Amino acid sequence: MAFGELDHVALVVRDLAAMEALYAPLGFSVLYRERVEEQGVDIVGLRAGDSAIELLRPLRDDSKLWHYLGTATSKLHHVAYRVDDLEGELARLKSLGVPLIDEHPRRGAHGNRIAFIHPSYTGGTLLELCQTPH
Amino acid sequence: MAFGELDHVALVVRDLAAMEALYAPLGFSVLYRERVEEQGVDIVGLRAGDSAIELLRPLRDDSKLWHYLGTATSKLHHVAYRVDDLEGELARLKSLGVPLIDEHPRRGAHGNRIAFIHPSYTGGTLLELCQTPH
Repeated sequence: MAFGELDHVALVVRDLAAMEALYAPLGFSVLYRERVEEQGVDIVGLRAGDSAIELLRPLRDDSKLWHYLGTATSKLHHVAYRVDDLEGELARLKSLGVPLIDEHPRRGAHGNRIAFIHPSYTGGTLLELCQTPH
Repeated sequence: MAFGELDHVALVVRDLAAMEALYAPLGFSVLYRERVEEQGVDIVGLRAGDSAIELLRPLRDDSKLWHYLGTATSKLHHVAYRVDDLEGELARLKSLGVPLIDEHPRRGAHGNRIAFIHPSYTGGTLLELCQTPH
């Protein structure tokens, strides 16, 4: 078991429509739009070859993501890699002592089941494991 | 013309060997190691499916990348998407008024020819265009 293909790169953004308009001339078309209440974000997925760019806009004023964004208009937030067996991979990582934000899968956008490795593991880079429904 | 598949996600890191050791149990094996003097970095490319994670360590103490890294051990820096015709895509973007760091290709790691869009375009996210030698 191991991480496979990149599923998406996620950015926190201040304004979804403005960011969509900037990415369109680069050739990134909209793949999905979704509100994920559990994560407190509206998401726009842009198609980037076989992967996606996920634009995340916090729903609530007290979201920690606003603090992360700071004065920027958009900021890289995390990178998600596909796994075939999310529970199995989480168990494997736990047995290795890799710190996890999620010991059990939760719901992501686009039908994905997801879990995050704690960024203390990499000292600042947030990695997501992602099992797609396909 | 448009951006195609993701080529790599790049991280600035404090210690290449330490970071390699952390990524190995996740299943990311070393794909290439290279010093790119023009960019002032040592690079380790980790295989992540059909794309790569590029770990960048600044060569010089006065590198701006150290300031970017701050107190973190690793930090997402940019995302690179493949294009078939780098000169053509740069000309197209310039004609659209997209601000570019590089109006002409320069050398990246792994035989790639690369160019960066100015992050003022996205308000903080650094995008690279990347033409692979294959």
